[in-house]
Amino acid sequence: MDAVLRYIESNRQRYVDELIEAVKIPSISSSPEHAGAVVACAEYLKARMLDAGLTQAEVFLTPGHPIVYGEWLGAPGQPTVLIYGHYDVQPVDPLNEWVTPPFEPAVRGRDLYGRGTVDDKGQVYVHLKAVEAHLKTSGSLPVNVKFIIEGEEEIGSEHLGNFLSAKQDLLRADLVVISDTPMLASDVPSICYGLRGIVYMELEVAGSTQDLHSGSFGGVAANPAMVLAQMLSQLKFGSGHVAVPNFYDRVRLIEESERQALARLPFDEPAFAALAGLPQLVGEYGYTALERIWARPSLDVNGLVSGFIGEGSKTIIPARALAKVSMRLVPDQDPDEIARLFEKFVHDITPPGVTVAVRYVHGGKPWLAPYDHPAFRVALDALEKGFHRPAVFIREGGSIPFVATIYEVLQRPCMLLGFGLPDENSHAPNERLNLDNYHRGIISCAHLLDGLAALSEG
Amino acid sequence: MDAVLRYIESNRQRYVDELIEAVKIPSISSSPEHAGAVVACAEYLKARMLDAGLTQAEVFLTPGHPIVYGEWLGAPGQPTVLIYGHYDVQPVDPLNEWVTPPFEPAVRGRDLYGRGTVDDKGQVYVHLKAVEAHLKTSGSLPVNVKFIIEGEEEIGSEHLGNFLSAKQDLLRADLVVISDTPMLASDVPSICYGLRGIVYMELEVAGSTQDLHSGSFGGVAANPAMVLAQMLSQLKFGSGHVAVPNFYDRVRLIEESERQALARLPFDEPAFAALAGLPQLVGEYGYTALERIWARPSLDVNGLVSGFIGEGSKTIIPARALAKVSMRLVPDQDPDEIARLFEKFVHDITPPGVTVAVRYVHGGKPWLAPYDHPAFRVALDALEKGFHRPAVFIREGGSIPFVATIYEVLQRPCMLLGFGLPDENSHAPNERLNLDNYHRGIISCAHLLDGLAALSEG
Repeated sequence: MDAVLRYIESNRQRYVDELIEAVKIPSISSSPEHAGAVVACAEYLKARMLDAGLTQAEVFLTPGHPIVYGEWLGAPGQPTVLIYGHYDVQPVDPLNEWVTPPFEPAVRGRDLYGRGTVDDKGQVYVHLKAVEAHLKTSGSLPVNVKFIIEGEEEIGSEHLGNFLSAKQDLLRADLVVISDTPMLASDVPSICYGLRGIVYMELEVAGSTQDLHSGSFGGVAANPAMVLAQMLSQLKFGSGHVAVPNFYDRVRLIEESERQALARLPFDEPAFAALAGLPQLVGEYGYTALERIWARPSLDVNGLVSGFIGEGSKTIIPARALAKVSMRLVPDQDPDEIARLFEKFVHDITPPGVTVAVRYVHGGKPWLAPYDHPAFRVALDALEKGFHRPAVFIREGGSIPFVATIYEVLQRPCMLLGFGLPDENSHAPNERLNLDNYHRGIISCAHLLDGLAALSEG
Repeated sequence: MDAVLRYIESNRQRYVDELIEAVKIPSISSSPEHAGAVVACAEYLKARMLDAGLTQAEVFLTPGHPIVYGEWLGAPGQPTVLIYGHYDVQPVDPLNEWVTPPFEPAVRGRDLYGRGTVDDKGQVYVHLKAVEAHLKTSGSLPVNVKFIIEGEEEIGSEHLGNFLSAKQDLLRADLVVISDTPMLASDVPSICYGLRGIVYMELEVAGSTQDLHSGSFGGVAANPAMVLAQMLSQLKFGSGHVAVPNFYDRVRLIEESERQALARLPFDEPAFAALAGLPQLVGEYGYTALERIWARPSLDVNGLVSGFIGEGSKTIIPARALAKVSMRLVPDQDPDEIARLFEKFVHDITPPGVTVAVRYVHGGKPWLAPYDHPAFRVALDALEKGFHRPAVFIREGGSIPFVATIYEVLQRPCMLLGFGLPDENSHAPNERLNLDNYHRGIISCAHLLDGLAALSEG
């Protein structure tokens, strides 16, 4: 390992420079006009996998965005690790709030700013650079490695399920490692064992066939913007509880032992609120903040638009109003079932004078798994070696549909090693990655590969 | 009058062509980038006034957009008529819904399409062309005429009040005629004796300093878009009543005699709904549709925006959410007082976890006046001569702040002669003006000038 660690140290700056090149590619998966950049990013990544020393790399086309696969299988008898990440990124608006442009990565202080730095190109590179360090120093890896880096994570991984079913042999592995989550806090390296699922809906209210003059029709025309507001307000109770009937029917209660474990984590609510720029934390009564984020479902309005939104005034009754609404789900909620409950409730509360359309945008299942396999002990050690701090077990409020799917398919331990921080603005302007954590992550992952081999021998 | 009527008939097409030229100027008063076009439109109108034969015309600058004044005062002993209109227009979005571009006027069937055709350039031209017909045939007008055509009607006529106070001598008149309203229906020429007032507000909810990941923060962060929806939904009861406390304190009840007069008007609710593209009419219980539009206040959301509104999905908790909310007022509600009540209520219902800003955008008083002055009889006759149909007395749900102001200043009869139709999309895409009504309006206004002179002699 000494040569590997020296290689990582002496290539520290080059590793940053190479990540910068990857972040420059505007691989926004939700944006049709960026489809070309998404494909370009997949091809770029394939080439970098071969540069790192993988023996094979391939771009698999799907009906949506491509999936990049890479492998090194030269360690017979050793376990095979499947590493998952994604190269697609979130949209960048509001663009004017970025200090430097999202696809012109810039280092300020100890952070690299740019869309995709932490979510998830930086975390993909952590693994790729750990693998490179092994391969360039010894010519081999301690274990077998497969990479699967997809291009639709930010839009619900729609075509990943079919790919996993079709390529089961190619993806066979003993352990799955995913890096697409944050650490609990700075200096608290974390292993995540649970994710929330998601269901993302659009809700559109239509009144007249066109915008109407609010003087000539105010008092007789249903106002789609007001109706939308009224309907959205009925989706949640003041208590923070979601009001969609039967929404909680399948929600698994948090076990007392887990509540106690979560309560012991080094988590500071006021500091967390301050970090997020929030005046205070709010939410469902009777649960701690970590429980609400990790183990309770939530409902959020992600976007709203209706009528005149320019500067100044326009006195209209808008013809239409649109909301994007997503729900984070916990075991054993099912996204398709929740989507149906949502749609039924919306139709039940639609008032006269308007018509309503509900569209299912994407969904993914929640995931929760035990962490008693010996590989988790290896991961704890590897993180402690990289960060010089003890690691903890956490859950995560976000959603990675891949994890539930691969867990169902492979029935193997999955571990989420997060190298981001909660305030690094994934999904927001000025997304960034702490470059010290990038470096520590690479060291940790190099140790992880080494430790997993030892495990097999032991 | 025969020569005048022949002149109108033989110049019918030219009158349309000249209106088309005026509509081409994109004089959107609410849009800072159109400020140059607004000034250009004022200068253009001044030149057209002189072309028509007015002896004097002037563009008065204000701290906002200019006011165009014109006069012909060559009839000593005769009454002076002050004609009011506006040359500014509404914004044009959603632009993609226009069949032909808003500032490239196009004739389809009997209609001229374009922004400002009916609201209000066409109606200004009705008067200007009637005046021209008199002046070009006899070299004089039957009465004295003053024009005041403003450029801020669509944004609340902010600077008109000061102008009226400063120029009282210039504006002295015996009668005020305003054409900026629709007829009750096609073939029902109408004289309007009441307008609703308006107060236009912006309401902005702020949560975090930036958009947050809805997975990492869903369940603990107040969602400004949801909070905005909850607050908007509290502004109105399900009954259609506005819920702002004390909102109705000064609302004058509709007199029984007026209710009966309104009930006799030829107004067909289902036809009106169909014309507006509405599935049905809704609103406050216990009032007819005309009463709700004309004599009851209303509250409408004019625009909404928050978070991600592009195609596809983005899983954020938006940092901010903005609504534009306007209320139409009836006598004796006061816009400033209503704005204060609104702002107080909004702050009273603001939940924890967010901050709220309320901004007053513009306001104007409601207006209601008797119509027993003999000039109204002259106007009825003039409209009947132009349209070959009996005219009726109506109110209007829209707002023209000028009217209440000039009525207070001059204490003279004000009459609103409307030449538009309720479905001509003022404030919406595909605004249009029926060219038969344009022609009939010009004839009616030529008769009006003639009849008002006879009134003075009688």
